[in-house]
Amino acid sequence: MKKIEHIGIAVNDLKASNNLFEKLLGVAPYKEEEVLSEGVKTSFFMTGPNKIELLEATHIDGPIAKFLAKKGEGVHHIAFAVDDIVAELARLKEEGFTIINEVPKRGADNKLVAFVHPKTTNGVLIELCQEAPEET
Amino acid sequence: MKKIEHIGIAVNDLKASNNLFEKLLGVAPYKEEEVLSEGVKTSFFMTGPNKIELLEATHIDGPIAKFLAKKGEGVHHIAFAVDDIVAELARLKEEGFTIINEVPKRGADNKLVAFVHPKTTNGVLIELCQEAPEET
Repeated sequence: MKKIEHIGIAVNDLKASNNLFEKLLGVAPYKEEEVLSEGVKTSFFMTGPNKIELLEATHIDGPIAKFLAKKGEGVHHIAFAVDDIVAELARLKEEGFTIINEVPKRGADNKLVAFVHPKTTNGVLIELCQEAPEET
Repeated sequence: MKKIEHIGIAVNDLKASNNLFEKLLGVAPYKEEEVLSEGVKTSFFMTGPNKIELLEATHIDGPIAKFLAKKGEGVHHIAFAVDDIVAELARLKEEGFTIINEVPKRGADNKLVAFVHPKTTNGVLIELCQEAPEET
């Protein structure tokens, strides 16, 4: 785990929340991105050395739609940057953590990502992310 | 808002969670501190340029005990470092955010702290914190 790459926050209305977080943080989002495979539309803010990612559901069966239905708006995950996501997943599995994605998948912001189940991390959904190599 | 100073995570058992987060982050907590006025025992981990604070309730009427009873373990707050907490609170109030502590109070880790109500920040409890001057 190198550092916190971003904090993901589930929101009902990305446009309204972009406005709200711009007021809170004092900076505008630097990009928006839709991840069709996850059923999610995202925006990213830089805050010092970290990012904040807002996530709005675009598909009723997606993980963000389910989270919002169950828990409402709020912190969805904490993402840590790693150099070697495969090695770090193996280390965490060995330590007894429950890994959701045994094989990393492509996420937003040009990352390879994998999640650790919150049941083994005090209720906190942990994401590992590594800069993805260019797609060929 | 300069940067994310720390993420606060409410836990049931600080000792067990210290062990768990040491495995997760690959570093041991660098300190523990009890804040009697808040009914909380805390530990701190460095992770890159940020900290993670674990919070265990020590008083049944404290804010962490209430959070755990209502929501269970998980992310409790995101704390942002500010240079001038009084000015930043005034700015956020002017922007329409609901401020919980109009007057900053002394928190853990030698900080002056104040909270912004999650009802105005998409369900995310926001803490502002400023290095406290030495007590005389």
